[in-house]
Amino acid sequence: VFADWQSSTDGGDELVDPSRSQYKEFFIVVNALLDGEEMTTCPYIWVDRDFALARGWIQGFPKKLGSIHMTRLFSAGQAAPRLEPGARFGATCAANDRQVARMVVTLEHVSETGPTVNDPPMYNTRHFPAASGERPDVFEMVRAGGRDRDMSEIWEGSAELHLYEDTLEDLQAIAPRETLRGYRFSFGYTVDGVTVVARHREEVTA
Amino acid sequence: VFADWQSSTDGGDELVDPSRSQYKEFFIVVNALLDGEEMTTCPYIWVDRDFALARGWIQGFPKKLGSIHMTRLFSAGQAAPRLEPGARFGATCAANDRQVARMVVTLEHVSETGPTVNDPPMYNTRHFPAASGERPDVFEMVRAGGRDRDMSEIWEGSAELHLYEDTLEDLQAIAPRETLRGYRFSFGYTVDGVTVVARHREEVTA
Amino acid sequence: VFADWQSSTDGGDELVDPSRSQYKEFFIVVNALLDGEEMTTCPYIWVDRDFALARGWIQGFPKKLGSIHMTRLFSAGQAAPRLEPGARFGATCAANDRQVARMVVTLEHVSETGPTVNDPPMYNTRHFPAASGERPDVFEMVRAGGRDRDMSEIWEGSAELHLYEDTLEDLQAIAPRETLRGYRFSFGYTVDGVTVVARHREEVTA
Amino acid sequence: VFADWQSSTDGGDELVDPSRSQYKEFFIVVNALLDGEEMTTCPYIWVDRDFALARGWIQGFPKKLGSIHMTRLFSAGQAAPRLEPGARFGATCAANDRQVARMVVTLEHVSETGPTVNDPPMYNTRHFPAASGERPDVFEMVRAGGRDRDMSEIWEGSAELHLYEDTLEDLQAIAPRETLRGYRFSFGYTVDGVTVVARHREEVTA
Repeated sequence: VFADWQSSTDGGDELVDPSRSQYKEFFIVVNALLDGEEMTTCPYIWVDRDFALARGWIQGFPKKLGSIHMTRLFSAGQAAPRLEPGARFGATCAANDRQVARMVVTLEHVSETGPTVNDPPMYNTRHFPAASGERPDVFEMVRAGGRDRDMSEIWEGSAELHLYEDTLEDLQAIAPRETLRGYRFSFGYTVDGVTVVARHREEVTA
Repeated sequence: VFADWQSSTDGGDELVDPSRSQYKEFFIVVNALLDGEEMTTCPYIWVDRDFALARGWIQGFPKKLGSIHMTRLFSAGQAAPRLEPGARFGATCAANDRQVARMVVTLEHVSETGPTVNDPPMYNTRHFPAASGERPDVFEMVRAGGRDRDMSEIWEGSAELHLYEDTLEDLQAIAPRETLRGYRFSFGYTVDGVTVVARHREEVTA
Repeated sequence: VFADWQSSTDGGDELVDPSRSQYKEFFIVVNALLDGEEMTTCPYIWVDRDFALARGWIQGFPKKLGSIHMTRLFSAGQAAPRLEPGARFGATCAANDRQVARMVVTLEHVSETGPTVNDPPMYNTRHFPAASGERPDVFEMVRAGGRDRDMSEIWEGSAELHLYEDTLEDLQAIAPRETLRGYRFSFGYTVDGVTVVARHREEVTA
Repeated sequence: VFADWQSSTDGGDELVDPSRSQYKEFFIVVNALLDGEEMTTCPYIWVDRDFALARGWIQGFPKKLGSIHMTRLFSAGQAAPRLEPGARFGATCAANDRQVARMVVTLEHVSETGPTVNDPPMYNTRHFPAASGERPDVFEMVRAGGRDRDMSEIWEGSAELHLYEDTLEDLQAIAPRETLRGYRFSFGYTVDGVTVVARHREEVTA
């Protein structure tokens, strides 16, 4: 998932200081089972601003810095796709002088269902090491949340995704065996916190 | 003027490789007289991508690299202003570890005229030094062009602009004595080339 | 303190992948008393790479991203100062399109004492919020450590330091009232962990 | 060739404002024949600062922006190689969210000859388009120059160089068929200008 965000706290003052409110990110969502129920999790995520990196860690997203670019819509001019069949949207991610991912989505029509692979609830790991020693101070599974979800019309179409090989992370182990559909939409939500569902560190000490 | 661009050549292939099509820039437009006629010129401009910097030099914009951020519109979510009275848009520019400019526009209503201070034609200087020696190989005044102009609705409102003092450029010499109105709109156009109106280097040799 | 670092784990493999081993940082050291004993603490620190930012948080340095530049020594050519009287070293820090600090040190002679203001032990705060709610999961005072310290000859001289006003942090509250001396040296050390001396969060719950 | 530079004009004031004096670059040197004599030329070069990019264009180096990292020497600490047999130096270059090159040199001994493949004089192309139309205003072959060359001891050893395939430039067409030796040294020089040896644009008009 490539995302191009603008965020703010309740007052919204960051919005007129846009270096503190805008960021882009690329993240990978993996499907899995948790106690027999379908779930998703985010093993890798790259972001291009520090405030978003820090907020991600607190919420259980293991964010690292990267360079991320995505085709945008504009309301005037010829140098932007429109939301119409055949429109192409591209995106790239690089980090540590290595390329990480490249994606192209070619729109076909408005989607009836939207993306479904990331429908199951997302569970991530919050982790913060101790001042010294091997046992972390925080090591827990959390369920991602959010409220006041607001979404634009969703378009879908064919998609190409390439995860590169020469990365620090083992992306080939989780690379998709089959690429289904690509989707393009705008989305907004509010996050207050996440819900702890298991504390690994207490289990370690048991 | 702060601008957040996406550009492409005729084929448009850069649009799906967005690191080659997007850039942001901040530039200063100065009003002057040329042979008694009103004109504008761009003495300073900062941009955040190399392809836009190179293209600018060819067209007579003396572009340097900078970090530029601007509040954006999004079609969903609470963390974006809408085009409505009271909406605030901010922008900042920094370069060489120095801050250059900060601006805030607070929208009031749709504008009937749009910005007028940059109505007069823009004349800039194309300059390229010689392989050695003092006399440049290219040193000419050009009139900026462009066709197929496409513009969204224009909003106007009150504006604050601060040009910082500790910059490499002497911005205080051209700082506005009075801040009139601020404007927010989307704009697209096509550039084929610029028109040479005077060759300084030939005059020098005369 | 401006610092230009190269770091590695025991094996040293990051050293041949230098985007993962080099970073620059600027930090402010404040002197204070802890139970009547002289101490130092680092309230603000900016760094230019993510791995150093993350490592800092674990050790109690509240690192944010910034752009940092420092004059360097080179072993050939005219475009570098030498370690000699009159040599000038400059440094700048910017973050979020704002300039943060600018420093110049003009060398006079080899220093007998080196810098002394940061002689007292450094105590910092490790902080990691909870998944939800106001009470943090980690909130403790730690004493910074390090072993195998290795230092080059130290030069000292006159110094100018400017902390800018238009920053997100209140730097004026801790700006130096008097600038004493500036120092220039190389330094290396090994960090295994830091020592916890107080847990604020347990005290809060008492 | 990977290079980590600090540069200044005669006065040297940029040296205490290091964001204007430091840059890193990666460039490719190709050997060829010019009128039967051995020559070299630089078809591709990436640099990480704008002032170096502009200066390069004036001298005939077709510089583009990139992210470049190189292992450095430091005079203290364990996290730096020393100039000794077995020491390893790495370097990487990326641009436009693509990786361009990766190199590792493992030192063996002080070199008697230094690198010889770039001994022949370097000829590059200065090019600056016209305000409009196809025929460039500047299009000439220049011989690179420089005086007051100052060089440290040169170490040599085995080398690995990888030029990546998924780049905007056709690097595979000029990729080395055989990797000979790698070299590590410091170098400084002064450039006043370059010498024009042929003007393509006049030949075109003939």
